[in-house]
Amino acid sequence: MSFNTFGHMFRVTTFGESHGPAIGCVVDGCPPRLALTAEDIQRDLDRRRPGQSRFTTQRQEPDQVRIISGVMASEDAGVQVTTGTPITLLIENTDQRSKDYSDIKDKFRPGHADFTYEAKYGLRDYRGGGRSSARETASRVAAGAVARKVLAGVTVRGALVQMGPHKIDRDSWDWSEVDHNPFFCPDRAKVAFYADYLDGIRKAGSSIGAVIEIVAEGVPAGLGAPIYGKLDSDLAAALMSINAVKGVEIGAGFGAAELSGEDNADEIRMSNHGPVFQSNHAGGILGGISTGQAVVARFAVKPTSSILTSRRTIDRHGAETEILTKGRHDPCVGIRAVPVGEAMVACVLADHLLRHRGQVGG
Amino acid sequence: MSFNTFGHMFRVTTFGESHGPAIGCVVDGCPPRLALTAEDIQRDLDRRRPGQSRFTTQRQEPDQVRIISGVMASEDAGVQVTTGTPITLLIENTDQRSKDYSDIKDKFRPGHADFTYEAKYGLRDYRGGGRSSARETASRVAAGAVARKVLAGVTVRGALVQMGPHKIDRDSWDWSEVDHNPFFCPDRAKVAFYADYLDGIRKAGSSIGAVIEIVAEGVPAGLGAPIYGKLDSDLAAALMSINAVKGVEIGAGFGAAELSGEDNADEIRMSNHGPVFQSNHAGGILGGISTGQAVVARFAVKPTSSILTSRRTIDRHGAETEILTKGRHDPCVGIRAVPVGEAMVACVLADHLLRHRGQVGG
Amino acid sequence: MSFNTFGHMFRVTTFGESHGPAIGCVVDGCPPRLALTAEDIQRDLDRRRPGQSRFTTQRQEPDQVRIISGVMASEDAGVQVTTGTPITLLIENTDQRSKDYSDIKDKFRPGHADFTYEAKYGLRDYRGGGRSSARETASRVAAGAVARKVLAGVTVRGALVQMGPHKIDRDSWDWSEVDHNPFFCPDRAKVAFYADYLDGIRKAGSSIGAVIEIVAEGVPAGLGAPIYGKLDSDLAAALMSINAVKGVEIGAGFGAAELSGEDNADEIRMSNHGPVFQSNHAGGILGGISTGQAVVARFAVKPTSSILTSRRTIDRHGAETEILTKGRHDPCVGIRAVPVGEAMVACVLADHLLRHRGQVGG
Amino acid sequence: MSFNTFGHMFRVTTFGESHGPAIGCVVDGCPPRLALTAEDIQRDLDRRRPGQSRFTTQRQEPDQVRIISGVMASEDAGVQVTTGTPITLLIENTDQRSKDYSDIKDKFRPGHADFTYEAKYGLRDYRGGGRSSARETASRVAAGAVARKVLAGVTVRGALVQMGPHKIDRDSWDWSEVDHNPFFCPDRAKVAFYADYLDGIRKAGSSIGAVIEIVAEGVPAGLGAPIYGKLDSDLAAALMSINAVKGVEIGAGFGAAELSGEDNADEIRMSNHGPVFQSNHAGGILGGISTGQAVVARFAVKPTSSILTSRRTIDRHGAETEILTKGRHDPCVGIRAVPVGEAMVACVLADHLLRHRGQVGG
Repeated sequence: MSFNTFGHMFRVTTFGESHGPAIGCVVDGCPPRLALTAEDIQRDLDRRRPGQSRFTTQRQEPDQVRIISGVMASEDAGVQVTTGTPITLLIENTDQRSKDYSDIKDKFRPGHADFTYEAKYGLRDYRGGGRSSARETASRVAAGAVARKVLAGVTVRGALVQMGPHKIDRDSWDWSEVDHNPFFCPDRAKVAFYADYLDGIRKAGSSIGAVIEIVAEGVPAGLGAPIYGKLDSDLAAALMSINAVKGVEIGAGFGAAELSGEDNADEIRMSNHGPVFQSNHAGGILGGISTGQAVVARFAVKPTSSILTSRRTIDRHGAETEILTKGRHDPCVGIRAVPVGEAMVACVLADHLLRHRGQVGG
Repeated sequence: MSFNTFGHMFRVTTFGESHGPAIGCVVDGCPPRLALTAEDIQRDLDRRRPGQSRFTTQRQEPDQVRIISGVMASEDAGVQVTTGTPITLLIENTDQRSKDYSDIKDKFRPGHADFTYEAKYGLRDYRGGGRSSARETASRVAAGAVARKVLAGVTVRGALVQMGPHKIDRDSWDWSEVDHNPFFCPDRAKVAFYADYLDGIRKAGSSIGAVIEIVAEGVPAGLGAPIYGKLDSDLAAALMSINAVKGVEIGAGFGAAELSGEDNADEIRMSNHGPVFQSNHAGGILGGISTGQAVVARFAVKPTSSILTSRRTIDRHGAETEILTKGRHDPCVGIRAVPVGEAMVACVLADHLLRHRGQVGG
Repeated sequence: MSFNTFGHMFRVTTFGESHGPAIGCVVDGCPPRLALTAEDIQRDLDRRRPGQSRFTTQRQEPDQVRIISGVMASEDAGVQVTTGTPITLLIENTDQRSKDYSDIKDKFRPGHADFTYEAKYGLRDYRGGGRSSARETASRVAAGAVARKVLAGVTVRGALVQMGPHKIDRDSWDWSEVDHNPFFCPDRAKVAFYADYLDGIRKAGSSIGAVIEIVAEGVPAGLGAPIYGKLDSDLAAALMSINAVKGVEIGAGFGAAELSGEDNADEIRMSNHGPVFQSNHAGGILGGISTGQAVVARFAVKPTSSILTSRRTIDRHGAETEILTKGRHDPCVGIRAVPVGEAMVACVLADHLLRHRGQVGG
Repeated sequence: MSFNTFGHMFRVTTFGESHGPAIGCVVDGCPPRLALTAEDIQRDLDRRRPGQSRFTTQRQEPDQVRIISGVMASEDAGVQVTTGTPITLLIENTDQRSKDYSDIKDKFRPGHADFTYEAKYGLRDYRGGGRSSARETASRVAAGAVARKVLAGVTVRGALVQMGPHKIDRDSWDWSEVDHNPFFCPDRAKVAFYADYLDGIRKAGSSIGAVIEIVAEGVPAGLGAPIYGKLDSDLAAALMSINAVKGVEIGAGFGAAELSGEDNADEIRMSNHGPVFQSNHAGGILGGISTGQAVVARFAVKPTSSILTSRRTIDRHGAETEILTKGRHDPCVGIRAVPVGEAMVACVLADHLLRHRGQVGG
């Protein structure tokens, strides 16, 4: 991963600021002759779109995607397909009304990237967070929709598994529930609780963190490239690059620190369909290479930094001051990170699928 | 990070198997005219070397490093310095006696990369784990010693902060203690406890996981490159690439999921020496860019997979069988991960220092 | 250079097909706080634009560029400046009327990329050449205009030095002449001759090749990175990547094969302003690193493949057939390659300037 | 290509200086299960080795290669095979006697990289040219031998086609002749002439340039990646990166500038074995992608810069002086560039074979 591009064979470059004319991405290296329409991409974008419940920011953006390049109608296939050349996806910013930024233009909002962008570049685009806005993640979701086309036979799904200190009950996990509540929560019994809990936080002008889990099923054994192209290493980079993420773990994750060698070992038995692991503490990855089990990754999202409580800070001239961020924000920005996490995992897997095929064939 | 190379401007390629003639690395992109001797590198290697206490594997390797290229005696400087060309470091394998591998040659050891290497490549180097051996991390430590030369004014230190479920007392943190016990433990009061605890595990032929923390002080504000070259993203990739690591977190990490926005915000005040953050939940990184505070990263290491208890597995022909790994192994492989973690953080910071200077100057 | 991206620190990704909605590029890694407006870019684009004389294709495209991201109005600077984030430049295709492609849809035009795209991808975008259209070079010119901003103090200029077998007279070289004739010819006396010559070729429905020379003055000594990041190596890749280019040379180039060591050696004398080379057979590059002299590169452009004379070929079903390309085309596509060559050289130099500053500082 | 590494999937990193303990390379990304022994590599190295005739430098180096990593004896295959992990090749420098360098230590030899290394790095390894020594090309040849293993069915051969102004007669081209004369000359009738010509130059203490041609047969159609990963673009970079190369051309090359569109078009007919091109002005590449014809590249090598005639120069303190290079040198360094050029072409083709398989499969 380098600057605004990630991936080696399946390469994604994203661009754009929150309040410029548009954001988007270029997906390079995609195999040719895959069916791909704007609708395929729009479906995923709509899952990330804000303003769909009272628990996400009320910014109204249709997030309508246009395919600018890299596809054509195929007479042979009867549908629109990828051509093997760069696929450019453009999403116009429609909610970029000229707001009054005098409040935050010169002040560094704690928890945001204001101070660091200024420290690095000597200036920053204060309009809506500029490049560091969560809006950038729409480009990732769009790219992820293309990656899913590459990953025929692989299912990449995500869910919120913890909000504040409150974890879901893993025994109640139901994937079909995830898209039927505003939290991407797989535990139906927890939905009402989360609604009440988050309403309280929202009304207090506060915010809270969350943990998201992404599961990829159908990943063939053998993806990943030792030593510095390990599948888990690339997943860690990809998920940690999402705004507000502070931790990433694979399989047993930090819990593995407390396990004994006997408990941690995923024993193997043989079935008619090949090897069967008896557990999955490894999260589907051993030595940086996929085992054929489900790839399981989790990431922690910090609480939204924009809150209604005043915080002490300084301005760009070094004067001490205070700031509170007006307007409505996601009280738990982790919620909308679910489709973003799925997209990043899909992109990493697609990249490794092509890399593996390149080196080893098959 | 790609295959066996990582970094963009400060680029490290490692090579070698556990039981081949040698392992080593090529460090490319290092600035010229930095004083560098084999002794500088040996010092760090000696901290990682096995066989220094009863708590690490008894494999006896001097891990003697030779500088093959990239340095010359400078008459101007009066010392040996880097030339700006690739620095190659070679460590010969001296303990590669022809052991009897018939036990593990065909069996997949659970928790090890045996199954996945075979799945990927259609064969694997079963001698001592081949490329997936922890021995490869010596190359990282050697490269890290070069990175430290680039990082004048920056201190990168690590410590073990948890063994099994037992965490250190952070109020007792004493950096000067770390190099005076076999656990890299910064809490003097915990050393005897860890010794007893690990002796029990060792004698039972079992193993246990650990958590390591790396702290980099003196990192200037402004290092890191949005969006896919974020400093924390590159740290996550680098630390997750270390053998047996299953989780990485920055600053408050997974704990951030439980924080409110008010508590998580690191407020800023002004001092005579510039901005002063009142806390460091961010772990020294906001928006992927360093704040000038200490950069704080933690990673979880799973228990050693080689244990004396028999585990069920299959062999490469698909037959069900059992395996136990004879010989003495690190009962807590996390211990020796401390200098490795330091090295990876140093390499990432050196890379970002050069990348920042390239784009922005100064 | 990889797929649709080139450069390491100053990275350019281009996208788009001839007859899609738009083409464009993303310039990543550009230093912040450089003044940049759409007009700066438009100026260079206008030099490449077709339809400006009877000697270039009559396709009418305004090639109007929009900056989609990466700039903001700076109150400090009083002008629009780069922010350090990706600069996206978009050029809409306005001349994409639905032509009748039935003639070429299934036939492989000799000299074009029709056969090879089909061989590689199993399909091709036959509309106007798709991705292999010379129209893609507009994106390069746009990126090059940004690179020029990075290269303060460096002048990158190009000229046509040969059309068919007819070379200019180097003793008559006058840079001020280049922008005052339709051939970018620096030899005023040759202009009328070239006009007659090319009229003859154009009227015959034929085409002819050309040689272009690019000269960069003010390049500081020290740019370039041995061994596989040599400045001349990167220039060769960049210029050879331009459509229809079949050869690249630096300084004395192929002529160096005929020189003796004595004649080829550029002797050095000292002046008040530093070292002065007595000749420049090296073309400003020794050992892959700039000498401080003018960097001189030349490239050969083959004749336009679209001609009015029928050529034998096959169609995608393997049937033998013939084809001639109707419509008006550039009789000498090399002419418009001049601003493209300048842009590529500027991008490579900008990249090496940042890379050098990263590794060595200053 | 970046710094000391080139290639994307088949990646080569070289290291080492002329007078350090060793030179070598790391080949990363090589497919597993390819038979590979040191002898396979030695065969190619021996073709490049100096001291084999009076027409090359008399430096005596056995250039004995050792495989340090990346291979193992395969019981399944009964031979030593690649494992898919990095292949490290080491060649010790045995002729590094402590010569007296006082003559050249402070003086910049015209035509060499002395001045530019000093300008870039602030110091240089004056012993035998350090990193810029032609000795580095042995590492390329070693890597190329591995690449040939990847390229089953592809033949990569080279020949000297011009020495000074004297070109071979292409009608007399006989590949079987190439390895039977000291010039890699495919025109038997020219050998005696070249011997006399070069003896004259050698005895005069002078040197002369040359042109080398590399031909790869059996390359499947479809290799190459538009727009900045074009096969010809990567070949240009690879060949231009060889010491002393000043020009590269593909197919008709600079001659294409003088061709008409009719003459340049390679017409296509159909045969029982697929498409047959009627000529190969394209040099086997159209739009950056291989056509299935022979890939033909040529490069110009400047005369050896080390000559016995005194040349004017300056020293590192800025004082004007003169220098002549004693000792025996290659009077035509282009000769030994033949196996180097073959190796570079083989590496580029291997890389593109894996990249193509990654993106498109098959």
